[in-house]
Amino acid sequence: MLAHKPLFPTPQDAEAAFYDALARADLEALMAVWAEDEEIVCVLPGGPRLLGYAAVREAWRRVFAGGRRFSITLSHQVNLAGLLFSVHNLYEHLGLPGGDGQTAPVIATNVYLRGALGWRLLAHHASQAPPEMPAEATKTLH
Amino acid sequence: MLAHKPLFPTPQDAEAAFYDALARADLEALMAVWAEDEEIVCVLPGGPRLLGYAAVREAWRRVFAGGRRFSITLSHQVNLAGLLFSVHNLYEHLGLPGGDGQTAPVIATNVYLRGALGWRLLAHHASQAPPEMPAEATKTLH
Repeated sequence: MLAHKPLFPTPQDAEAAFYDALARADLEALMAVWAEDEEIVCVLPGGPRLLGYAAVREAWRRVFAGGRRFSITLSHQVNLAGLLFSVHNLYEHLGLPGGDGQTAPVIATNVYLRGALGWRLLAHHASQAPPEMPAEATKTLH
Repeated sequence: MLAHKPLFPTPQDAEAAFYDALARADLEALMAVWAEDEEIVCVLPGGPRLLGYAAVREAWRRVFAGGRRFSITLSHQVNLAGLLFSVHNLYEHLGLPGGDGQTAPVIATNVYLRGALGWRLLAHHASQAPPEMPAEATKTLH
């Protein structure tokens, strides 16, 4: 367990911590981003729906137990924000360090909610994306 | 266009209208469920991320243009609700009428928000599920 629970003043802070923990394969830091007092839900690419802290934690433990480390870059980020919630959608690009291998991109929807102790992750739904990037967001990059 | 915009008093009402429209391949009714004053986001299984009303509408138009009609049953529904938003996660089971063919289930995350005119759909992320159902929710069915 982490000695002190981190506090995320914005949903962007929570998201940055999530992907930083993922890149470092740090299970404790990753789980600290999730909401504590709520049921949480998580879908990993090709996997079943995971419900509740224990199931979500066990799935990520297995992901990290494989020992693979990824570099992660994000793109096409869209944030749909409310006062008490924030829905983020983005593309994750996972790379295997040391190689030029880049896995196919993943589309993720992340839902954050604002609680007494800042923003936390409530839902993460990730699934394989087709190889091509959406044109709408590519436009904004040029 | 629908003559009168429907009003959905609860997120469950919006969700029921969404899947009813999907089963009837009714594009106008389906699009009437989405939020109007917000950017909306939609991911269909295996497809790219769709952003904004026009892109979402065009994708569904193509789905329905194929002329196929589905029967749809839902299962494993979980609702994570706030005052102004509601996150639903569920399994969609699409069947082809007249046959005994059942496609592989789809996992969907639907985010609804409460506006001046009731609840509307803000985000729909659907992706192929593995053949097995999650055990946590199956338990509650017996």
